[in-house]
Amino acid sequence: MQLLKDMILAKGRVRGESILKVDSFLNHQIDVGLMNEIAKEFKERFKDASITKILTIEASGIAVACFVGQQFGVPVLFAKKTESKNLDNETYESQVYSFTKDKYYTIRVSKSYLSAEDNVLIIDDFLANGQAALGLLDLVKQSGAVLSGVGIVIEKGFQEGGRHLREQGIRLVSLAVIRSMQSGKIVFEP
Amino acid sequence: MQLLKDMILAKGRVRGESILKVDSFLNHQIDVGLMNEIAKEFKERFKDASITKILTIEASGIAVACFVGQQFGVPVLFAKKTESKNLDNETYESQVYSFTKDKYYTIRVSKSYLSAEDNVLIIDDFLANGQAALGLLDLVKQSGAVLSGVGIVIEKGFQEGGRHLREQGIRLVSLAVIRSMQSGKIVFEP
Repeated sequence: MQLLKDMILAKGRVRGESILKVDSFLNHQIDVGLMNEIAKEFKERFKDASITKILTIEASGIAVACFVGQQFGVPVLFAKKTESKNLDNETYESQVYSFTKDKYYTIRVSKSYLSAEDNVLIIDDFLANGQAALGLLDLVKQSGAVLSGVGIVIEKGFQEGGRHLREQGIRLVSLAVIRSMQSGKIVFEP
Repeated sequence: MQLLKDMILAKGRVRGESILKVDSFLNHQIDVGLMNEIAKEFKERFKDASITKILTIEASGIAVACFVGQQFGVPVLFAKKTESKNLDNETYESQVYSFTKDKYYTIRVSKSYLSAEDNVLIIDDFLANGQAALGLLDLVKQSGAVLSGVGIVIEKGFQEGGRHLREQGIRLVSLAVIRSMQSGKIVFEP
């Protein structure tokens, strides 16, 4: 998606060879115009799928998922990372490994909002090692829902998350795939 | 806002005398149609203010803030609760006391995205004790931005957050104010 790539080149900042800061428009401050265009793109790319629910994970997936849910006209469900007394006791749970924190955390969704009747599109802002996406896939599998695909705003193509998903035969749509960020220079996959 | 009150009465579930579960449409699963109407209502109620930025706090404030940002056509900024290596080192910080967890946590926004040039509308899903709102107000104050007001989806009128804000002369717009939830019965302020 050219508009997104242009924004990444204009406003993204590279730290080291693997960290891309896009907090001016994607995951701290949110550019609502760009989010609308991103959501329209996902709608176009998954227009053949009869999506009934958008699934994401807190916190930074929520924004883009909301705009996508609006385009599809379906509810958005976000998995929670922390115990909450406001969440049902009846939940689907999965363990997600965090490379940055070197520990596992639990993600949960209420069984009330994900079922075998659902046709799910998973949405997230980033795909790197793919641990969060695999956790969300596990929740979908437990619920018996159909998975239509995974939509990612920015995929770090030099990390293994995308390969893991594609090897499982999952329909993965990443709107910008970064091949490398060596010496601070962002190079996209064609 | 009648549509919201109807939804709360139809789908909200009371636990004890102070917990209202609205995870079917507001803070776990998100009803995008309702969010659009809520956002339009905030736009109408703050139409005289020249808002330049919507400020909220992760995680459950993000969804409603995104829809409000879309209505105003301005960026959304969400305060982070955890240390993040993807956040600038230069941040405004405030301490927020959590009654449920009986401890303080730090909230942060990057100084890059909040300044004296901004006219801020704070948006959140719930107002109870008001600690999160007071933390966000503190961030706005540190930045030198103008505060136009605070927009809340559901205010627990029987807790003190609303009074604290109104006593400070802050323009507080709560779309549904709950007077009591005794014996599982939800009663709104008129």
